[in-house]
Amino acid sequence: MSSQKKYLIKFIPGNKTIKVSSNYNLRQAILDCGLEIDSSCGGVGTCGRCKVQVKEGKVNTKKSKFISTKEKEDGFVLSCQSKVESDLVVFIPKKKKAKVRIEEGRLVEKPSKNYAGISRNELSPVEIKPWILKETIKVEKPSISYSTSCLYRVKKTIRDSLKIKDCIIPIHIIRKLPGILREKEWQVTVTIDKKNNTLIDIQAGGVDKKCYGLALDIGTTTLVMYLVDLDNGEIINSISEYNPQIKFGEDIISRIVYSNKEAGMKKLREVIIDSINNLIWNLLLKSNIDAVSIVSMMVSGNSTMMHLFYGVPPKYIREEPYVAVANRFPNSTAEEVGIKHIKNAIIYCIQGVASYLGGDITSGVLATDIARQSELTLFLDLGTNGELVVGNREWMMGCSCSAGPAFEGGGVNCGIRAIDGAIERVLIDQKTYRCDFEIIGGGKPRGICGSGLIDIIGEMYMKGIIDRKGKLNQDIGNKYLKCADKDCRYVLVKAEDSATGKDIYISEIDIDNLIRAKAAIYAGVKTLLEEVDLSIYDLDRIYIAGGLGRYLNIKNTVAIGMLPDIEINKYYFLGNTSITGAYLSLLSEDKYRQSLKIADEITYIELSVNMKFMDRYVAGLFLPYTDMKDFPTVEELMYSLDSGFKKNKKKG
Amino acid sequence: MSSQKKYLIKFIPGNKTIKVSSNYNLRQAILDCGLEIDSSCGGVGTCGRCKVQVKEGKVNTKKSKFISTKEKEDGFVLSCQSKVESDLVVFIPKKKKAKVRIEEGRLVEKPSKNYAGISRNELSPVEIKPWILKETIKVEKPSISYSTSCLYRVKKTIRDSLKIKDCIIPIHIIRKLPGILREKEWQVTVTIDKKNNTLIDIQAGGVDKKCYGLALDIGTTTLVMYLVDLDNGEIINSISEYNPQIKFGEDIISRIVYSNKEAGMKKLREVIIDSINNLIWNLLLKSNIDAVSIVSMMVSGNSTMMHLFYGVPPKYIREEPYVAVANRFPNSTAEEVGIKHIKNAIIYCIQGVASYLGGDITSGVLATDIARQSELTLFLDLGTNGELVVGNREWMMGCSCSAGPAFEGGGVNCGIRAIDGAIERVLIDQKTYRCDFEIIGGGKPRGICGSGLIDIIGEMYMKGIIDRKGKLNQDIGNKYLKCADKDCRYVLVKAEDSATGKDIYISEIDIDNLIRAKAAIYAGVKTLLEEVDLSIYDLDRIYIAGGLGRYLNIKNTVAIGMLPDIEINKYYFLGNTSITGAYLSLLSEDKYRQSLKIADEITYIELSVNMKFMDRYVAGLFLPYTDMKDFPTVEELMYSLDSGFKKNKKKG
Repeated sequence: MSSQKKYLIKFIPGNKTIKVSSNYNLRQAILDCGLEIDSSCGGVGTCGRCKVQVKEGKVNTKKSKFISTKEKEDGFVLSCQSKVESDLVVFIPKKKKAKVRIEEGRLVEKPSKNYAGISRNELSPVEIKPWILKETIKVEKPSISYSTSCLYRVKKTIRDSLKIKDCIIPIHIIRKLPGILREKEWQVTVTIDKKNNTLIDIQAGGVDKKCYGLALDIGTTTLVMYLVDLDNGEIINSISEYNPQIKFGEDIISRIVYSNKEAGMKKLREVIIDSINNLIWNLLLKSNIDAVSIVSMMVSGNSTMMHLFYGVPPKYIREEPYVAVANRFPNSTAEEVGIKHIKNAIIYCIQGVASYLGGDITSGVLATDIARQSELTLFLDLGTNGELVVGNREWMMGCSCSAGPAFEGGGVNCGIRAIDGAIERVLIDQKTYRCDFEIIGGGKPRGICGSGLIDIIGEMYMKGIIDRKGKLNQDIGNKYLKCADKDCRYVLVKAEDSATGKDIYISEIDIDNLIRAKAAIYAGVKTLLEEVDLSIYDLDRIYIAGGLGRYLNIKNTVAIGMLPDIEINKYYFLGNTSITGAYLSLLSEDKYRQSLKIADEITYIELSVNMKFMDRYVAGLFLPYTDMKDFPTVEELMYSLDSGFKKNKKKG
Repeated sequence: MSSQKKYLIKFIPGNKTIKVSSNYNLRQAILDCGLEIDSSCGGVGTCGRCKVQVKEGKVNTKKSKFISTKEKEDGFVLSCQSKVESDLVVFIPKKKKAKVRIEEGRLVEKPSKNYAGISRNELSPVEIKPWILKETIKVEKPSISYSTSCLYRVKKTIRDSLKIKDCIIPIHIIRKLPGILREKEWQVTVTIDKKNNTLIDIQAGGVDKKCYGLALDIGTTTLVMYLVDLDNGEIINSISEYNPQIKFGEDIISRIVYSNKEAGMKKLREVIIDSINNLIWNLLLKSNIDAVSIVSMMVSGNSTMMHLFYGVPPKYIREEPYVAVANRFPNSTAEEVGIKHIKNAIIYCIQGVASYLGGDITSGVLATDIARQSELTLFLDLGTNGELVVGNREWMMGCSCSAGPAFEGGGVNCGIRAIDGAIERVLIDQKTYRCDFEIIGGGKPRGICGSGLIDIIGEMYMKGIIDRKGKLNQDIGNKYLKCADKDCRYVLVKAEDSATGKDIYISEIDIDNLIRAKAAIYAGVKTLLEEVDLSIYDLDRIYIAGGLGRYLNIKNTVAIGMLPDIEINKYYFLGNTSITGAYLSLLSEDKYRQSLKIADEITYIELSVNMKFMDRYVAGLFLPYTDMKDFPTVEELMYSLDSGFKKNKKKG
């Protein structure tokens, strides 16, 4: 060997060089150099991906159907099928990396009218870089003179061909090694989780290299799951369902209370895991994809949902000082968390910040890219709780204000979730006080969802139906009012016109609950900003995420004093950013790492003991706010309109 | 703080120094310095182990029952109860490390008369250094201003107090964290597997720090288990049982054959796991020890036994080129391998060298310390197979010679294992040819075990009852011969005197099988030595391990040509070294690491295709060997005795 001729190869771009013996395999030389070369057949010439261009020098190469006549003329060869025969200059084309953009990540949802989302210009494309590697390798066949164990030779091949050292091969894989290795002459396809440095599957021969993953958002109300092609980011299918835990309590607090009951924890966990297993099963059926190709699942959700998913008691989340058991749960096998069908998959979760600022918020901050931009952004997730993060690439602070479930329909007599039959937009006639509305899915209305409730309060206030305290004016000739004893209601839909056969109305008690909820959110925003000596006018934009309904009338949201009174074009309504963050983290190792950094870097402020928050909350129990100076455009608008507000103002 | 006075502390021995503020905790200063200090209460003054001697300077220390008046006068204090009040010189007494010697590791077995074992002088004491740490720690209680998750604060405390970074806390432990942390005011006792950097148990408060481990030898014939105190190496109890797989086949090959049958693998695994679970259960009952304090189990055994234990098909071990699936199985949880009762324990195994040179041999080499000594040693494990290792601290080579199960009673009509009723020693009267024997456990004999069979062949040969080919001499007036057709037997015990009611005899076919077995072993020894250009006279000693019986008459073993004819005092009969190696590896991280190194360093030679081995095997089908020059003392002895040999020689 030592007398054999050595040749110098230079690889461009990068100008890395290596000396190899005559007839050395060109692909191996590339790998020896530590360079990357695309390949999915493990170097046996059947995938055509390891194409390179020989710019100078001579190689002995086999014919290949992957090389066109034109390419051949230009010096393209399959590196795995080429032997070095002289000094070379070799051009390695850049590996084609699929790109994905957030919009494409949300293909399944049509952007709403208000959806500004993140434009193509704003957001840098995400490089797909999943940490799962699926490659076909050729393990050296044993012989009497080389009779090391199967395990050893598989590890050695993984080390030599894939450059992965000390890959962990768990016992359940070892159990099937001997058969699988011999099935196709010691050629196998390995699926390796690079993050955990673990072999998660081994199949005989050179099989389909497609890998899929699942992104899952466990919302208090809704579960959403994407089935994603990890090569190109395509969302093969998506599915969503109500969180079956709803029957044990609508909001987080009632779930935690239920979890403390006998067998409560067990039941809550059982139904959520069953439901997720069903979603997976249905996605597999719909997509005609083999369960073994699903290699990972990324889960996002608020802290309580994550505790219940992992089977960890959430009890102490609701007891001062509100401590979570964990903000990030360890990478687990599907079996460990009770997930069926996808037994090869590793389950990851998005890290949360605090008990009331969970992984869903981290996901949202990741999806909106706040942490990498210079603009000062307020991120607001309006679900059962109001969760806020304010900041930019320099710093981030977050808090949670227990808004209560009013805007998700809880504690409001005719409140329902944003489902078919929900009134989602409302307009009240200034003269007749009659109510016009839009209904999700059309047909007769069943109730009012979050965006509808905001519209109603806004409209009622602007049209003078309620006063600043939220009390119904009984002396303006509103014939839609129904008052009895101390109970007064404004009827939107009469019993005969509703799907339920009952009036759809809003009572003073409902209004009270809604005002308390909006007060909490605005108090949160003001307190959070003041902690960093900023005012609402310093904000460059406000992102609103969450499940209040598909549409949100920002003007009304501002009019009732829930959101700050700044230019309307600074508002962006994004919908479910938790699933988007999970989707991005699933696709890209960088994004997942970024999400962990985000969770670590957000400073959490506990509002439940913050006196300034309390003061502002009390100030927010008026419409839009005790001090009208905070809402100049609302005040201006009221006076400019020939509105009930003006009339009432005169009376008051 | 910055204006506070700083004091310099010097710790001896070692002279490490540190500057700390006035009133700084002395134990913390020791830890800050990176020094070790014994402690099991986590620094709350209740264990009395962190005693140090203040040689110079002043501390403010609390009274403690652990400090005697005399000690107080000498400056001894509990470091955790002492605050620094001046510059100090502090003496840290050396942590008392328990020592263990191999003999103590075999307390349960009385050394046999031939047992030379390893004398106290020869073997350096083993420092007990298990990799399981059990310590009580105080986790900081959460408050509104410090409300990080339970998981985070446990990890932080482990990092700060125990200097263990990034400890892995698995999901099943996380599930019980919230309750356990609050049970005793955030004081918990953690059990950490330092090798895997994993928290394996957490208990509320400061509980008993005792940790126990199990050493297990899975022999083809026998299972042996030790329950070991990991603090001092004491073997609390030991237990042994037949390998229940015997009913599916006596030797390795027949087990592998059975494993290929339908459900064969499942059955073999089930019975062994059941049996081990029973052993554990019985040990726990006998010892009155809580199962949760058992933190590790170290398993040793030949490759086939390990495959079956881990549920891995051993099929290819018996097919050329004889490849094992793995020589070392990954560290597993008890649950993963189906072990009950000790759910906190991590299961480790001793690494093997090759398919037919398993972890039992690595264990033996470890136990005998061959790999660290300059003397050239031959290690021989005489079980169902004959396995050999020769070498010293410079090099080691090993091989396996398929001796077959004859010496364990297989293929020999009246052969049995070394159980009660087995004839284990034999002496034949030169004149009458009557047989005298010793029986294990006394009483009537049931059969003949390995050492008995060796004695018989040796005696028969020396007394002229058989010739060099192993044929029975029918013309010497031996009235104990029974011949019919082609079948000729030498009867040791008549039917009426035996426990079985049948003759106990040895036939020519039996003798043939035994001669083939001994030929294989001697051929192995010679071939192995010749591979490294050595002769038997270069050997400094021969260690014999294995289960041929409790006693082995070396003289007869040499006389039949099974073992080399060198000075008898070079022979040491050790018994079960597999369990001893497992026991040592369980106790000491260093020893376990050493065992892995041994397995990596032994060069394996495959004899099944070695022509020299074949030649020597054929040469060994004579007693003692075709070429008598190999056995000079045997030849000399034969002539010096007034023996049948002489007579026959004359006749022949």
